[in-house]
Amino acid sequence: MAPPNKKIILVTNDDGITAPGLHALVEAVKDLGEIVVVAPDSPQSGMGHAITINHPLRLDKVEMHGDHVWYQSSGTPVDCVKLAIDKILHRKPDLCVSGINHGSNSSINVIYSGTMSAAMEGAIEGIPSVGFSLLNYSMDADFSPAAAYARVIAKNVLEKGLPTGSLLNVNIPNAGLDEIKGVKICRQAMAKWVEEFDERMDPNKRKYYWLTGKFINQDKGEDTDEWALSNNYVSIVPVQFDFTAHHAIPFLNTLSYEL
Amino acid sequence: MAPPNKKIILVTNDDGITAPGLHALVEAVKDLGEIVVVAPDSPQSGMGHAITINHPLRLDKVEMHGDHVWYQSSGTPVDCVKLAIDKILHRKPDLCVSGINHGSNSSINVIYSGTMSAAMEGAIEGIPSVGFSLLNYSMDADFSPAAAYARVIAKNVLEKGLPTGSLLNVNIPNAGLDEIKGVKICRQAMAKWVEEFDERMDPNKRKYYWLTGKFINQDKGEDTDEWALSNNYVSIVPVQFDFTAHHAIPFLNTLSYEL
Repeated sequence: MAPPNKKIILVTNDDGITAPGLHALVEAVKDLGEIVVVAPDSPQSGMGHAITINHPLRLDKVEMHGDHVWYQSSGTPVDCVKLAIDKILHRKPDLCVSGINHGSNSSINVIYSGTMSAAMEGAIEGIPSVGFSLLNYSMDADFSPAAAYARVIAKNVLEKGLPTGSLLNVNIPNAGLDEIKGVKICRQAMAKWVEEFDERMDPNKRKYYWLTGKFINQDKGEDTDEWALSNNYVSIVPVQFDFTAHHAIPFLNTLSYEL
Repeated sequence: MAPPNKKIILVTNDDGITAPGLHALVEAVKDLGEIVVVAPDSPQSGMGHAITINHPLRLDKVEMHGDHVWYQSSGTPVDCVKLAIDKILHRKPDLCVSGINHGSNSSINVIYSGTMSAAMEGAIEGIPSVGFSLLNYSMDADFSPAAAYARVIAKNVLEKGLPTGSLLNVNIPNAGLDEIKGVKICRQAMAKWVEEFDERMDPNKRKYYWLTGKFINQDKGEDTDEWALSNNYVSIVPVQFDFTAHHAIPFLNTLSYEL
Protein backbone atom coordinates (compact mmCIF):
# COMPACT_ATOMS: atom_id res chain seq x y z
CA MET A 1 0.00 0.00 0.00
CA ALA A 2 2.69 2.50 1.05
CA PRO A 3 6.14 2.75 -0.55
CA PRO A 4 8.59 0.56 1.41
CA ASN A 5 10.22 3.53 3.15
CA LYS A 6 6.98 5.26 4.10
CA LYS A 7 5.54 4.76 7.56
CA ILE A 8 1.94 3.63 7.87
CA ILE A 9 -0.14 5.36 10.54
CA LEU A 10 -3.43 3.83 11.62
CA VAL A 11 -5.88 6.41 12.98
CA THR A 12 -9.01 5.48 14.92
CA ASN A 13 -11.27 6.87 17.63
CA ASP A 14 -14.42 6.16 19.65
CA ASP A 15 -16.52 9.20 18.80
CA GLY A 16 -17.09 7.87 15.29
CA ILE A 17 -15.90 8.67 11.78
CA THR A 18 -17.59 12.06 11.55
CA ALA A 19 -16.15 13.43 14.83
CA PRO A 20 -14.13 16.66 14.43
CA GLY A 21 -11.46 15.29 16.80
CA LEU A 22 -10.68 12.43 14.38
CA HIS A 23 -10.29 14.81 11.49
CA ALA A 24 -8.07 17.10 13.58
CA LEU A 25 -5.84 14.11 14.42
CA VAL A 26 -5.54 13.09 10.76
CA GLU A 27 -4.49 16.64 9.86
CA ALA A 28 -1.98 16.67 12.72
CA VAL A 29 -0.12 13.52 11.67
CA LYS A 30 -0.68 13.37 7.90
CA ASP A 31 2.83 14.46 6.93
CA LEU A 32 4.44 11.83 9.19
CA GLY A 33 3.39 8.87 7.03
CA GLU A 34 0.68 7.27 4.98
CA ILE A 35 -2.64 7.61 6.80
CA VAL A 36 -5.21 4.82 7.04
CA VAL A 37 -8.35 5.65 9.05
CA VAL A 38 -10.56 2.85 10.40
CA ALA A 39 -13.18 4.25 12.75
CA PRO A 40 -16.59 3.29 14.13
CA ASP A 41 -19.57 4.32 11.99
CA SER A 42 -21.29 5.72 15.10
CA PRO A 43 -20.21 7.02 18.52
CA GLN A 44 -18.79 4.35 20.86
CA SER A 45 -17.94 6.30 23.99
CA GLY A 46 -17.75 4.28 27.17
CA MET A 47 -17.24 1.01 25.30
CA GLY A 48 -14.11 0.14 27.27
CA HIS A 49 -12.25 -2.79 25.77
CA ALA A 50 -15.39 -4.29 24.22
CA ILE A 51 -15.12 -6.58 21.22
CA THR A 52 -17.90 -7.86 18.98
CA ILE A 53 -18.21 -11.63 19.11
CA ASN A 54 -21.93 -12.35 18.99
CA HIS A 55 -22.87 -10.58 15.76
CA PRO A 56 -21.15 -9.92 12.45
CA LEU A 57 -19.22 -6.77 11.64
CA ARG A 58 -19.45 -4.43 8.68
CA LEU A 59 -16.41 -2.70 7.20
CA ASP A 60 -16.93 -0.19 4.38
CA LYS A 61 -14.59 2.11 2.51
CA VAL A 62 -15.78 5.71 2.60
CA GLU A 63 -14.82 8.69 0.47
CA MET A 64 -13.93 11.33 3.00
CA HIS A 65 -10.68 12.88 1.84
CA GLY A 66 -9.27 12.12 -1.61
CA ASP A 67 -5.71 11.51 -0.47
CA HIS A 68 -6.26 9.19 2.49
CA VAL A 69 -7.86 5.79 2.93
CA TRP A 70 -10.92 5.88 5.20
CA TYR A 71 -12.98 2.95 6.41
CA GLN A 72 -15.90 2.80 8.78
CA SER A 73 -16.95 -0.24 10.80
CA SER A 74 -20.04 -1.22 12.73
CA GLY A 75 -17.74 -2.48 15.49
CA THR A 76 -16.13 -1.05 18.60
CA PRO A 77 -12.81 0.85 18.58
CA VAL A 78 -11.00 -2.40 19.44
CA ASP A 79 -12.73 -4.16 16.53
CA CYS A 80 -11.53 -1.34 14.24
CA VAL A 81 -7.89 -1.96 15.15
CA LYS A 82 -8.24 -5.72 14.68
CA LEU A 83 -10.03 -5.28 11.32
CA ALA A 84 -7.44 -2.76 10.13
CA ILE A 85 -4.59 -5.18 10.69
CA ASP A 86 -6.25 -8.33 9.37
CA LYS A 87 -8.42 -7.02 6.53
CA ILE A 88 -6.95 -3.71 5.32
CA LEU A 89 -3.25 -3.34 6.06
CA HIS A 90 -2.29 -7.04 6.14
CA ARG A 91 0.64 -5.92 8.33
CA LYS A 92 1.20 -3.96 11.50
CA PRO A 93 1.18 -0.19 11.04
CA ASP A 94 4.21 1.72 12.34
CA LEU A 95 2.03 3.79 14.64
CA CYS A 96 -1.52 3.63 15.94
CA VAL A 97 -3.13 6.87 17.14
CA SER A 98 -6.60 7.13 18.61
CA GLY A 99 -8.70 10.27 19.16
CA ILE A 100 -8.67 13.13 19.56
CA ASN A 101 -11.39 12.26 22.04
CA HIS A 102 -14.09 14.79 22.85
CA GLY A 103 -13.62 14.77 26.63
CA SER A 104 -11.07 13.68 29.22
CA ASN A 105 -9.63 10.18 29.54
CA SER A 106 -7.40 11.05 32.48
CA SER A 107 -7.02 9.00 35.68
CA ILE A 108 -9.60 6.20 36.12
CA ASN A 109 -11.34 7.15 32.85
CA VAL A 110 -8.66 5.17 31.02
CA ILE A 111 -10.59 2.04 32.07
CA TYR A 112 -13.93 3.06 30.51
CA SER A 113 -12.49 4.69 27.42
CA GLY A 114 -12.96 3.34 23.92
CA THR A 115 -10.27 5.76 22.72
CA MET A 116 -7.72 4.25 25.08
CA SER A 117 -8.85 0.68 24.43
CA ALA A 118 -8.13 1.10 20.73
CA ALA A 119 -4.63 2.29 21.62
CA MET A 120 -4.23 -0.57 24.10
CA GLU A 121 -5.24 -3.06 21.42
CA GLY A 122 -2.56 -1.57 19.16
CA ALA A 123 0.01 -1.97 21.94
CA ILE A 124 -0.99 -5.60 22.58
CA GLU A 125 -0.31 -6.16 18.86
CA GLY A 126 3.16 -4.70 19.35
CA ILE A 127 2.39 -1.38 17.62
CA PRO A 128 3.62 1.88 19.21
CA SER A 129 0.26 3.40 20.20
CA VAL A 130 -1.09 6.62 21.66
CA GLY A 131 -4.55 7.83 22.68
CA PHE A 132 -5.29 11.58 22.67
CA SER A 133 -8.11 13.34 24.51
CA LEU A 134 -9.10 16.99 24.85
CA LEU A 135 -10.75 18.21 28.04
CA ASN A 136 -13.75 19.60 26.16
CA TYR A 137 -16.81 17.50 25.36
CA SER A 138 -18.21 19.93 22.85
CA MET A 139 -18.44 19.05 19.16
CA ASP A 140 -17.29 22.57 18.26
CA ALA A 141 -14.24 22.57 20.57
CA ASP A 142 -11.00 24.11 19.28
CA PHE A 143 -8.75 21.11 18.59
CA SER A 144 -5.77 23.08 17.29
CA PRO A 145 -3.67 23.16 20.50
CA ALA A 146 -4.36 19.45 21.05
CA ALA A 147 -3.43 18.73 17.44
CA ALA A 148 -0.11 20.57 17.78
CA TYR A 149 0.86 18.42 20.78
CA ALA A 150 -0.48 15.27 19.11
CA ARG A 151 1.86 15.89 16.19
CA VAL A 152 4.97 16.31 18.40
CA ILE A 153 4.17 13.25 20.49
CA ALA A 154 3.31 11.08 17.47
CA LYS A 155 6.61 12.12 15.82
CA ASN A 156 8.55 11.20 18.97
CA VAL A 157 6.90 7.79 19.17
CA LEU A 158 7.41 7.06 15.45
CA GLU A 159 11.11 7.93 15.73
CA LYS A 160 11.99 6.59 19.19
CA GLY A 161 9.38 3.91 19.86
CA LEU A 162 8.02 3.10 23.32
CA PRO A 163 9.25 0.85 26.13
CA THR A 164 8.02 -2.76 25.80
CA GLY A 165 4.48 -3.35 26.99
CA SER A 166 3.52 0.33 27.18
CA LEU A 167 1.33 2.81 25.33
CA LEU A 168 0.57 6.48 26.01
CA ASN A 169 -2.52 8.17 27.43
CA VAL A 170 -2.28 11.83 26.44
CA ASN A 171 -4.75 14.41 27.75
CA ILE A 172 -4.74 18.04 26.68
CA PRO A 173 -6.18 20.84 28.82
CA ASN A 174 -8.96 22.93 27.33
CA ALA A 175 -6.80 26.02 26.89
CA GLY A 176 -5.11 28.09 24.22
CA LEU A 177 -1.61 27.25 22.98
CA ASP A 178 -0.24 30.31 24.79
CA GLU A 179 -1.80 29.14 28.07
CA ILE A 180 -0.52 25.54 27.94
CA LYS A 181 2.73 25.35 29.91
CA GLY A 182 4.18 22.21 28.28
CA VAL A 183 4.14 18.45 28.87
CA LYS A 184 4.35 16.44 32.10
CA ILE A 185 5.02 12.69 32.27
CA CYS A 186 2.63 11.50 34.99
CA ARG A 187 1.13 8.58 36.83
CA GLN A 188 -2.60 7.82 36.73
CA ALA A 189 -4.35 9.71 39.54
CA MET A 190 -6.33 7.56 41.98
CA ALA A 191 -9.62 9.28 41.27
CA LYS A 192 -13.09 7.79 40.75
CA TRP A 193 -16.68 8.47 39.82
CA VAL A 194 -19.46 8.56 42.35
CA GLU A 195 -22.47 7.41 40.41
CA GLU A 196 -26.05 8.32 40.67
CA PHE A 197 -28.71 6.96 38.42
CA ASP A 198 -31.41 9.37 37.34
CA GLU A 199 -34.67 7.40 37.72
CA ARG A 200 -37.55 8.12 35.31
CA MET A 201 -40.84 6.59 34.27
CA ASP A 202 -41.64 5.64 30.68
CA PRO A 203 -45.14 6.14 29.14
CA ASN A 204 -45.93 2.51 30.08
CA LYS A 205 -45.16 3.24 33.76
CA ARG A 206 -41.97 1.20 33.74
CA LYS A 207 -38.90 2.69 35.40
CA TYR A 208 -35.70 3.37 33.52
CA TYR A 209 -32.36 4.88 34.51
CA TRP A 210 -29.76 7.26 33.10
CA LEU A 211 -26.21 6.96 34.35
CA THR A 212 -24.92 10.22 35.81
CA GLY A 213 -22.01 10.80 38.13
CA LYS A 214 -19.59 13.10 39.80
CA PHE A 215 -15.84 12.87 39.39
CA ILE A 216 -13.91 12.82 42.67
CA ASN A 217 -10.13 13.16 42.84
CA GLN A 218 -8.81 12.28 46.29
CA ASP A 219 -5.24 11.92 45.03
CA LYS A 220 -3.25 14.99 46.07
CA GLY A 221 0.00 13.88 44.34
CA GLU A 222 1.70 16.44 42.12
CA ASP A 223 2.98 13.66 39.87
CA THR A 224 -0.53 12.74 38.64
CA ASP A 225 -2.31 13.49 35.37
CA GLU A 226 -5.06 15.34 37.25
CA TRP A 227 -2.53 17.69 38.82
CA ALA A 228 -0.84 18.35 35.47
CA LEU A 229 -4.12 19.05 33.70
CA SER A 230 -5.47 21.34 36.39
CA ASN A 231 -2.19 23.28 36.14
CA ASN A 232 -2.50 23.62 32.34
CA TYR A 233 0.05 21.00 31.38
CA VAL A 234 -0.49 18.30 28.76
CA SER A 235 -0.41 15.00 30.70
CA ILE A 236 1.27 11.87 29.33
CA VAL A 237 0.67 8.70 31.34
CA PRO A 238 2.45 5.56 30.14
CA VAL A 239 -0.07 2.71 30.41
CA GLN A 240 0.54 -1.05 30.56
CA PHE A 241 -1.60 -4.03 29.69
CA ASP A 242 0.03 -6.28 32.27
CA PHE A 243 -2.56 -5.71 35.00
CA THR A 244 -0.81 -7.92 37.59
CA ALA A 245 -0.84 -6.32 41.06
CA HIS A 246 2.62 -7.62 41.95
CA HIS A 247 2.45 -5.91 45.37
CA ALA A 248 -0.42 -8.21 46.38
CA ILE A 249 1.34 -11.52 45.68
CA PRO A 250 3.18 -11.94 49.04
CA PHE A 251 -0.05 -11.40 51.03
CA LEU A 252 -2.00 -13.87 48.89
CA ASN A 253 0.70 -16.47 49.44
CA THR A 254 0.12 -16.32 53.21
CA LEU A 255 -3.50 -17.55 52.91
CA SER A 256 -4.73 -21.15 52.92
CA TYR A 257 -6.72 -22.47 49.98
CA GLU A 258 -7.45 -25.95 51.34
CA LEU A 259 -10.91 -27.21 50.43
CA MET B 1 -31.69 -5.21 54.11
CA ALA B 2 -29.46 -7.68 55.99
CA PRO B 3 -29.17 -7.88 59.78
CA PRO B 4 -26.34 -5.58 60.93
CA ASN B 5 -23.93 -8.45 61.52
CA LYS B 6 -24.64 -10.25 58.27
CA LYS B 7 -22.31 -9.71 55.32
CA ILE B 8 -23.82 -8.66 52.00
CA ILE B 9 -22.46 -10.41 48.92
CA LEU B 10 -23.14 -8.94 45.48
CA VAL B 11 -23.07 -11.56 42.73
CA THR B 12 -22.92 -10.70 39.04
CA ASN B 13 -21.60 -12.08 35.75
CA ASP B 14 -21.38 -11.43 32.03
CA ASP B 15 -23.06 -14.54 30.66
CA GLY B 16 -26.45 -13.29 31.83
CA ILE B 17 -28.91 -14.10 34.57
CA THR B 18 -29.83 -17.55 33.29
CA ALA B 19 -26.24 -18.83 32.97
CA PRO B 20 -25.51 -22.00 34.98
CA GLY B 21 -22.18 -20.53 36.14
CA LEU B 22 -23.99 -17.68 37.94
CA HIS B 23 -26.28 -20.11 39.74
CA ALA B 24 -23.30 -22.29 40.70
CA LEU B 25 -21.57 -19.24 42.19
CA VAL B 26 -24.66 -18.27 44.21
CA GLU B 27 -24.86 -21.79 45.60
CA ALA B 28 -21.13 -21.72 46.43
CA VAL B 29 -21.23 -18.53 48.52
CA LYS B 30 -24.80 -18.46 49.85
CA ASP B 31 -23.93 -19.49 53.41
CA LEU B 32 -21.25 -16.78 53.68
CA GLY B 33 -23.71 -13.88 53.75
CA GLU B 34 -26.88 -12.38 52.35
CA ILE B 35 -26.88 -12.78 48.58
CA VAL B 36 -27.98 -10.05 46.16
CA VAL B 37 -27.72 -10.94 42.47
CA VAL B 38 -27.70 -8.18 39.82
CA ALA B 39 -26.87 -9.62 36.41
CA PRO B 40 -27.35 -8.72 32.75
CA ASP B 41 -30.63 -9.85 31.20
CA SER B 42 -28.70 -11.25 28.21
CA PRO B 43 -25.15 -12.47 27.53
CA GLN B 44 -22.50 -9.72 27.58
CA SER B 45 -19.29 -11.61 26.86
CA GLY B 46 -16.47 -9.51 25.45
CA MET B 47 -17.97 -6.27 26.75
CA GLY B 48 -14.75 -5.27 28.49
CA HIS B 49 -15.23 -2.33 30.81
CA ALA B 50 -18.14 -0.95 28.79
CA ILE B 51 -20.72 1.31 30.45
CA THR B 52 -24.04 2.47 29.07
CA ILE B 53 -24.19 6.24 28.68
CA ASN B 54 -26.13 6.87 25.47
CA HIS B 55 -29.34 5.03 26.25
CA PRO B 56 -31.39 4.34 29.35
CA LEU B 57 -31.07 1.23 31.50
CA ARG B 58 -33.70 -1.16 32.76
CA LEU B 59 -33.48 -2.83 36.16
CA ASP B 60 -36.11 -5.39 37.13
CA LYS B 61 -36.56 -7.66 40.11
CA VAL B 62 -36.96 -11.28 39.09
CA GLU B 63 -38.27 -14.26 41.01
CA MET B 64 -35.56 -16.85 40.60
CA HIS B 65 -34.96 -18.37 44.04
CA GLY B 66 -37.29 -17.66 46.92
CA ASP B 67 -34.60 -16.93 49.47
CA HIS B 68 -32.36 -14.54 47.51
CA VAL B 69 -32.84 -11.18 45.86
CA TRP B 70 -32.33 -11.30 42.08
CA TYR B 71 -32.35 -8.39 39.65
CA GLN B 72 -31.69 -8.28 35.94
CA SER B 73 -30.53 -5.25 34.00
CA SER B 74 -30.37 -4.32 30.34
CA GLY B 75 -26.86 -2.95 30.99
CA THR B 76 -23.33 -4.29 30.93
CA PRO B 77 -21.67 -6.11 33.87
CA VAL B 78 -20.13 -2.80 34.99
CA ASP B 79 -23.56 -1.13 34.85
CA CYS B 80 -24.90 -3.94 37.05
CA VAL B 81 -22.36 -3.22 39.79
CA LYS B 82 -23.05 0.52 39.65
CA LEU B 83 -26.83 -0.02 39.72
CA ALA B 84 -26.58 -2.48 42.60
CA ILE B 85 -24.77 0.02 44.79
CA ASP B 86 -26.81 3.12 43.91
CA LYS B 87 -30.31 1.69 43.43
CA ILE B 88 -30.55 -1.60 45.33
CA LEU B 89 -28.12 -1.86 48.23
CA HIS B 90 -27.68 1.87 48.96
CA ARG B 91 -24.33 0.86 50.48
CA LYS B 92 -21.22 -1.03 49.47
CA PRO B 93 -21.53 -4.80 49.75
CA ASP B 94 -18.87 -6.63 51.79
CA LEU B 95 -17.85 -8.72 48.80
CA CYS B 96 -18.43 -8.62 45.06
CA VAL B 97 -18.09 -11.89 43.13
CA SER B 98 -18.47 -12.22 39.38
CA GLY B 99 -18.92 -15.39 37.33
CA ILE B 100 -18.48 -18.25 37.21
CA ASN B 101 -17.65 -17.40 33.61
CA HIS B 102 -18.19 -20.00 30.92
CA GLY B 103 -14.66 -19.91 29.49
CA SER B 104 -11.18 -18.71 30.44
CA ASN B 105 -10.30 -15.17 31.48
CA SER B 106 -6.63 -15.92 32.01
CA SER B 107 -3.70 -13.83 30.76
CA ILE B 108 -4.65 -11.09 28.24
CA ASN B 109 -8.33 -12.12 28.33
CA VAL B 110 -8.68 -10.11 31.54
CA ILE B 111 -8.79 -7.02 29.29
CA TYR B 112 -11.74 -8.14 27.15
CA SER B 113 -13.69 -9.79 29.93
CA GLY B 114 -17.01 -8.51 31.19
CA THR B 115 -16.69 -10.88 34.17
CA MET B 116 -13.43 -9.26 35.24
CA SER B 117 -14.65 -5.74 34.49
CA ALA B 118 -17.52 -6.20 36.92
CA ALA B 119 -15.01 -7.28 39.57
CA MET B 120 -12.72 -4.36 38.67
CA GLU B 121 -15.64 -1.95 39.05
CA GLY B 122 -16.26 -3.40 42.51
CA ALA B 123 -12.61 -2.89 43.41
CA ILE B 124 -12.63 0.72 42.18
CA GLU B 125 -15.57 1.25 44.56
CA GLY B 126 -13.41 -0.13 47.38
CA ILE B 127 -15.21 -3.49 47.59
CA PRO B 128 -13.14 -6.70 47.94
CA SER B 129 -13.85 -8.27 44.55
CA VAL B 130 -13.15 -11.51 42.71
CA GLY B 131 -13.91 -12.79 39.21
CA PHE B 132 -14.17 -16.55 38.63
CA SER B 133 -13.88 -18.36 35.30
CA LEU B 134 -13.97 -22.03 34.33
CA LEU B 135 -11.94 -23.25 31.36
CA ASN B 136 -15.00 -24.73 29.68
CA TYR B 137 -17.24 -22.72 27.34
CA SER B 138 -20.05 -25.24 27.39
CA MET B 139 -23.41 -24.42 28.96
CA ASP B 140 -23.54 -27.92 30.47
CA ALA B 141 -20.05 -27.81 32.00
CA ASP B 142 -19.57 -29.28 35.48
CA PHE B 143 -19.16 -26.23 37.72
CA SER B 144 -18.80 -28.16 40.99
CA PRO B 145 -14.97 -28.12 41.29
CA ALA B 146 -14.92 -24.42 40.35
CA ALA B 147 -17.66 -23.73 42.90
CA ALA B 148 -15.69 -25.48 45.66
CA TYR B 149 -12.66 -23.26 45.04
CA ALA B 150 -14.86 -20.17 44.60
CA ARG B 151 -16.25 -20.78 48.09
CA VAL B 152 -12.81 -21.08 49.74
CA ILE B 153 -11.46 -18.01 47.98
CA ALA B 154 -14.57 -15.90 48.67
CA LYS B 155 -14.38 -16.88 52.36
CA ASN B 156 -10.71 -15.86 52.52
CA VAL B 157 -11.44 -12.50 50.92
CA LEU B 158 -14.46 -11.82 53.17
CA GLU B 159 -12.40 -12.59 56.28
CA LYS B 160 -8.98 -11.18 55.35
CA GLY B 161 -9.72 -8.55 52.70
CA LEU B 162 -7.39 -7.73 49.82
CA PRO B 163 -4.39 -5.39 49.52
CA THR B 164 -5.38 -1.83 48.53
CA GLY B 165 -6.07 -1.32 44.84
CA SER B 166 -6.26 -5.02 43.97
CA LEU B 167 -8.87 -7.59 42.99
CA LEU B 168 -8.54 -11.26 42.06
CA ASN B 169 -8.75 -12.99 38.69
CA VAL B 170 -9.40 -16.67 39.45
CA ASN B 171 -9.39 -19.28 36.68
CA ILE B 172 -10.22 -22.93 37.26
CA PRO B 173 -8.97 -25.75 35.02
CA ASN B 174 -11.56 -27.93 33.34
CA ALA B 175 -10.83 -30.97 35.50
CA GLY B 176 -12.32 -33.04 38.29
CA LEU B 177 -11.71 -32.12 41.95
CA ASP B 178 -9.38 -35.12 42.30
CA GLU B 179 -7.30 -33.94 39.34
CA ILE B 180 -6.90 -30.30 40.46
CA LYS B 181 -3.60 -30.00 42.35
CA GLY B 182 -4.43 -26.85 44.34
CA VAL B 183 -4.01 -23.09 43.97
CA LYS B 184 -1.13 -21.01 42.56
CA ILE B 185 -0.75 -17.25 43.01
CA CYS B 186 0.43 -16.07 39.57
CA ARG B 187 1.24 -13.16 37.33
CA GLN B 188 -0.69 -12.50 34.10
CA ALA B 189 0.98 -14.40 31.23
CA MET B 190 2.08 -12.27 28.28
CA ALA B 191 -0.07 -14.10 25.77
CA LYS B 192 -2.26 -12.70 22.97
CA TRP B 193 -4.80 -13.48 20.28
CA VAL B 194 -3.92 -13.61 16.63
CA GLU B 195 -7.11 -12.57 14.92
CA GLU B 196 -8.58 -13.58 11.70
CA PHE B 197 -11.89 -12.31 10.43
CA ASP B 198 -14.06 -14.81 8.67
CA GLU B 199 -15.36 -12.94 5.59
CA ARG B 200 -18.84 -13.77 4.26
CA MET B 201 -21.40 -12.36 1.85
CA ASP B 202 -24.95 -11.49 2.87
CA PRO B 203 -27.97 -12.11 0.58
CA ASN B 204 -27.63 -8.50 -0.65
CA LYS B 205 -24.03 -9.16 -1.74
CA ARG B 206 -22.54 -7.02 1.03
CA LYS B 207 -19.56 -8.39 2.93
CA TYR B 208 -19.63 -9.01 6.64
CA TYR B 209 -17.11 -10.41 9.11
CA TRP B 210 -17.03 -12.72 12.11
CA LEU B 211 -14.22 -12.31 14.61
CA THR B 212 -12.24 -15.51 15.08
CA GLY B 213 -8.80 -15.96 16.52
CA LYS B 214 -6.10 -18.19 17.85
CA PHE B 215 -4.64 -17.86 21.33
CA ILE B 216 -0.85 -17.72 21.41
CA ASN B 217 1.16 -17.96 24.65
CA GLN B 218 4.78 -17.02 24.10
CA ASP B 219 5.40 -16.56 27.83
CA LYS B 220 7.37 -19.55 29.13
CA GLY B 221 7.38 -18.36 32.78
CA GLU B 222 6.36 -20.92 35.39
CA ASP B 223 4.91 -18.13 37.56
CA THR B 224 2.13 -17.34 35.06
CA ASP B 225 -1.57 -18.17 35.10
CA GLU B 226 -1.22 -20.06 31.82
CA TRP B 227 1.45 -22.33 33.31
CA ALA B 228 -0.64 -23.00 36.42
CA LEU B 229 -3.77 -23.82 34.43
CA SER B 230 -1.99 -26.11 31.99
CA ASN B 231 -0.58 -27.96 35.00
CA ASN B 232 -4.04 -28.37 36.58
CA TYR B 233 -3.72 -25.69 39.23
CA VAL B 234 -6.35 -23.05 39.98
CA SER B 235 -4.69 -19.72 39.06
CA ILE B 236 -5.16 -16.57 41.13
CA VAL B 237 -3.78 -13.38 39.59
CA PRO B 238 -4.06 -10.21 41.68
CA VAL B 239 -5.11 -7.42 39.30
CA GLN B 240 -4.78 -3.66 39.70
CA PHE B 241 -6.68 -0.74 38.20
CA ASP B 242 -3.69 1.59 38.34
CA PHE B 243 -2.55 0.99 34.76
CA THR B 244 0.52 3.28 35.00
CA ALA B 245 3.58 1.74 33.32
CA HIS B 246 5.99 3.15 35.88
CA HIS B 247 8.94 1.48 34.12
CA ALA B 248 8.37 3.72 31.07
CA ILE B 249 8.53 7.07 32.89
CA PRO B 250 12.33 7.59 32.87
CA PHE B 251 12.53 7.00 29.08
CA LEU B 252 9.65 9.37 28.39
CA ASN B 253 11.36 12.06 30.43
CA THR B 254 14.39 11.94 28.10
CA LEU B 255 12.35 13.08 25.07
CA SER B 256 11.67 16.65 23.93
CA TYR B 257 8.09 17.86 23.58
CA GLU B 258 8.85 21.35 22.26
CA LEU B 259 6.34 22.51 19.65
